[in-house]
Amino acid sequence: MPLTADARGVYPIAPTPFFDDGTIDTASIDRLVDFYQSCGCTGITVLGQLGEAPKLEHAEAVDIAARVVRRASALPVIVGVSAPGFAAMRALAREAMERGAAGVMIAPPNTLRTDDQIVGYYKQAAEAIGADVPFVLQDYPLTFSVQIAPGVIRRIVNDVPSCVMLKHEDWPGLEKISTLRGYERDGSMRHIAILCGNGGLFLDFEMARGADGANTGYCFPDMLCDVVRLCGDGRRDEAHDLFDAHLPLLRYEQQPGVGLAVRKYVMVRRGLLSCAAQRSPAAPMPERARLEVDWLLERLARKDARARLGG
Amino acid sequence: MPLTADARGVYPIAPTPFFDDGTIDTASIDRLVDFYQSCGCTGITVLGQLGEAPKLEHAEAVDIAARVVRRASALPVIVGVSAPGFAAMRALAREAMERGAAGVMIAPPNTLRTDDQIVGYYKQAAEAIGADVPFVLQDYPLTFSVQIAPGVIRRIVNDVPSCVMLKHEDWPGLEKISTLRGYERDGSMRHIAILCGNGGLFLDFEMARGADGANTGYCFPDMLCDVVRLCGDGRRDEAHDLFDAHLPLLRYEQQPGVGLAVRKYVMVRRGLLSCAAQRSPAAPMPERARLEVDWLLERLARKDARARLGG
Amino acid sequence: MPLTADARGVYPIAPTPFFDDGTIDTASIDRLVDFYQSCGCTGITVLGQLGEAPKLEHAEAVDIAARVVRRASALPVIVGVSAPGFAAMRALAREAMERGAAGVMIAPPNTLRTDDQIVGYYKQAAEAIGADVPFVLQDYPLTFSVQIAPGVIRRIVNDVPSCVMLKHEDWPGLEKISTLRGYERDGSMRHIAILCGNGGLFLDFEMARGADGANTGYCFPDMLCDVVRLCGDGRRDEAHDLFDAHLPLLRYEQQPGVGLAVRKYVMVRRGLLSCAAQRSPAAPMPERARLEVDWLLERLARKDARARLGG
Amino acid sequence: MPLTADARGVYPIAPTPFFDDGTIDTASIDRLVDFYQSCGCTGITVLGQLGEAPKLEHAEAVDIAARVVRRASALPVIVGVSAPGFAAMRALAREAMERGAAGVMIAPPNTLRTDDQIVGYYKQAAEAIGADVPFVLQDYPLTFSVQIAPGVIRRIVNDVPSCVMLKHEDWPGLEKISTLRGYERDGSMRHIAILCGNGGLFLDFEMARGADGANTGYCFPDMLCDVVRLCGDGRRDEAHDLFDAHLPLLRYEQQPGVGLAVRKYVMVRRGLLSCAAQRSPAAPMPERARLEVDWLLERLARKDARARLGG
Repeated sequence: MPLTADARGVYPIAPTPFFDDGTIDTASIDRLVDFYQSCGCTGITVLGQLGEAPKLEHAEAVDIAARVVRRASALPVIVGVSAPGFAAMRALAREAMERGAAGVMIAPPNTLRTDDQIVGYYKQAAEAIGADVPFVLQDYPLTFSVQIAPGVIRRIVNDVPSCVMLKHEDWPGLEKISTLRGYERDGSMRHIAILCGNGGLFLDFEMARGADGANTGYCFPDMLCDVVRLCGDGRRDEAHDLFDAHLPLLRYEQQPGVGLAVRKYVMVRRGLLSCAAQRSPAAPMPERARLEVDWLLERLARKDARARLGG
Repeated sequence: MPLTADARGVYPIAPTPFFDDGTIDTASIDRLVDFYQSCGCTGITVLGQLGEAPKLEHAEAVDIAARVVRRASALPVIVGVSAPGFAAMRALAREAMERGAAGVMIAPPNTLRTDDQIVGYYKQAAEAIGADVPFVLQDYPLTFSVQIAPGVIRRIVNDVPSCVMLKHEDWPGLEKISTLRGYERDGSMRHIAILCGNGGLFLDFEMARGADGANTGYCFPDMLCDVVRLCGDGRRDEAHDLFDAHLPLLRYEQQPGVGLAVRKYVMVRRGLLSCAAQRSPAAPMPERARLEVDWLLERLARKDARARLGG
Repeated sequence: MPLTADARGVYPIAPTPFFDDGTIDTASIDRLVDFYQSCGCTGITVLGQLGEAPKLEHAEAVDIAARVVRRASALPVIVGVSAPGFAAMRALAREAMERGAAGVMIAPPNTLRTDDQIVGYYKQAAEAIGADVPFVLQDYPLTFSVQIAPGVIRRIVNDVPSCVMLKHEDWPGLEKISTLRGYERDGSMRHIAILCGNGGLFLDFEMARGADGANTGYCFPDMLCDVVRLCGDGRRDEAHDLFDAHLPLLRYEQQPGVGLAVRKYVMVRRGLLSCAAQRSPAAPMPERARLEVDWLLERLARKDARARLGG
Repeated sequence: MPLTADARGVYPIAPTPFFDDGTIDTASIDRLVDFYQSCGCTGITVLGQLGEAPKLEHAEAVDIAARVVRRASALPVIVGVSAPGFAAMRALAREAMERGAAGVMIAPPNTLRTDDQIVGYYKQAAEAIGADVPFVLQDYPLTFSVQIAPGVIRRIVNDVPSCVMLKHEDWPGLEKISTLRGYERDGSMRHIAILCGNGGLFLDFEMARGADGANTGYCFPDMLCDVVRLCGDGRRDEAHDLFDAHLPLLRYEQQPGVGLAVRKYVMVRRGLLSCAAQRSPAAPMPERARLEVDWLLERLARKDARARLGG
């Protein structure tokens, strides 16, 4: 089933599990996928920015995508295919789709500046991977240094039919969601799915602005599922209560550099990963950070039992 | 009393109050200064990044600095003097010091790249304003796009005696504080004050890492004072409880663009400012954002009575 | 006489002459202005990027503008007013115009990214300085890191009537001139003057593409005048012969960093300036560079007698 | 024979020849290699920035490297392996070396900022490709936005033994060569080869500053060979005469964007390539540019017979 503009819910950004020697930990991949399915996720994104994709050989990337697709039989899988050139992007996109991926995700190269350059890039990318491959537009200026105005997203959506979803992580970004939904209401842009990234830092308000869900890798994807569900049910106060309980840790994890180490560390403590290792070059977690995260987990456990982790 | 490396506590970044017609609201300046003094602040910084300094004529800037100095008789006042050229920087620094400022703050121009360029810039700036003017090094890569490695800060501190304080707002930044304090312990860098900015987003951990306090403009500076005091008293859990209660609003205010509007809006609601206006070009607060901030205040009020504001 | 869209010919970017002690060398200003007038320049631009404007106090900047205006009675004078804030920009623009300037020049701050941000900036700037002040849009991505697509220039020109001239120094830029002139021909953009900067590196072809002249600071402005005149007279081969003879030196002078030192050094050797000093912080000319420039001048002198300079 | 720090002469950056349908034109590869050998080149660099490397699939890149190695039996071949991740870089480097390449070339990712980040990156890259693979450090801030101070190059050279050559294309860059050679003289840095890129724009002076030759793709590599040889023979005036004759065209070709189209167009006219096509996304050469290049070739032909090309 190809990805469509009706996607909604939570698509966690899956980390890539490694052992200490750098080999891929396939058992943890399976465990992670099972967990995502069991806690209410509606899809999975692999090989994203924090999936350590650039550290993988092409064949490894294809294998991981294929494994997740097989394991997550019921869920659509999106594969990150961002690359400096269209040849590598096309190769990975085609092979991932052949193995059952539902769509791909494309981030802009950080050299793009003008509106026309950005629109042109996505047109060329869509042509390169093939018009039959649905793709997610990743809008993350903080990391990619590319600022995409709402009107530019509209141009891309209108010009490129295979663009079906926005991974929204502009910052600030609340007004951007409102503006895009306004475009849909006034008929100037067709509907696309908007799932929010940026670590989930504004998920509490993004749903009310019109987002369809979350597309980020926070170490408690089950919380993201709950918040999205509570918002959908109109239980706004409960959604905020739960979100606010997690915010101190979520904010800590959202830091660039150390964030992935925090995510993997908590996932190990939760029993989801066997090992917190990153493939080289790794950004390690200093001992002081580990203690701070333990402290945050302890405090979180008072409000969310899922954070009660054995030592 | 000139600023020294022993500065500590909370130096709020003061907004510049305007009326709707763009004129400066001096009564609000006085009220704000009185409030800062009454709630435990140990200094005040004016004309910073969010003080709308570039929208002020030179004479206006000098007047504001002078007014705050007079009103805040007991507190040291730091004046932001960042400028594209050393002539303007020198002029404002000298005039502010003549009117009683305790020191100045200098951000790096966003064209600096290599370590040597950064060190060279601060040497030249210190020479331009005069060796007798103590200054604060503002380290805010998210806004200024200049990445200053800890070793570069050490070079500046060691080479430029008039550098007495770091406005620490690198992101991520916790390890940076630890590294700098390590330099002091191993004798490779003299002591400087480290006060934390970045909206206060990590203040809960920064104090334990060795920071001396906060130097940021969050709309509840009284909370910042409490957290710094609680941390100093070793009441860690209470500090985190209070901080966490504010974190949803603090995170909302820390957004670029809309942040200053949020800050001024809340300060009006708190009775500190008469008017939330920004001088042109202003980044307005959309109605939806206002409702979100009201919601956050209401929720905050359940935990901190200071947020119980008449509508 | 205010600057209009009919400007043409050569508007040299005047350096600011200093003595070794950093004081302004007014006699050299006068000599320079006289020379510009005598060799066929049709206007003068002061306080541009290479006029060391950020090193001048406000009053000094106004004095220099006023002095050049008085001396260059017959020629329109454009004053660079780029500033980080509209208050300073407005102040300098108004004072310069009161003293007889024909218009001002505004470069974009290097934080602008999207098309809308760029258009918005120029609208606000025009409003700040006043709709009665004609201005030059400086388009120099290599230095300012702002990429302005031709369609964005068209939006600015159409939305802001006081924009009358483009200082064209995009790189590459030949197609941009053709595109803009195409907009004029197809009626989608009103006519503006296009004068070329970027050190003059492509002036030989820019004229044929539709440029109206040069607006740059090369140390032989008399050559620029000749090339523009020869192009206007259809003497294309002669224009290229003269230009090519200067190209080795012109290319050398166009280097960032050392370029201004080269320019001032040659102008001293030509008797136009008394002193090659830059105000601090200065980028000095290494001895090896001096010898290379002397070599280039010697070789140039074989083809252009104006380069035969006493040693 | 692995590349060593004694490399010198001219290593042209080879374009990748394509047919109009995007397939690789192997006959033109052979013809090009034969020409490079016949005109005095001492090595060849393939898959560089202007070799359209990102548009090639991995297997294609390996094939091209292998073909050039076989054909250029007498000459060392350097293979560009720059990649966003070390996995892809390592894979291409190992396969190229197995097929007989003499070394590889690595450009820095444009996210690097501080000195330590740059040094760290090259250490990790050298470790990733293996200590036995000699590599060229590509220093091109204009394109890669990474500014590498001379002291940083020294740190890399001293810390990473497999760094044997600098592709020098900083701008301005003459003083950098002098500084690096000074490091060698004062014993603080071991000797490395310095070959100059940046289109050759300053080759006339770079040789006298201590460069060992050229490493750039100008469409007349035979001219580059002559200039390097004349400089080596102390025939300075002849070297400059020849260089200056080419400078108008060389400057035109050095423009970003249109430069590769110009290069391929002239190489077709010279009979070196069958087709000027670029693989998509291509930067085409407008008709006006073609006429300008024809004009430059005609003028050049008056001074260098090699530019007398049949229409």
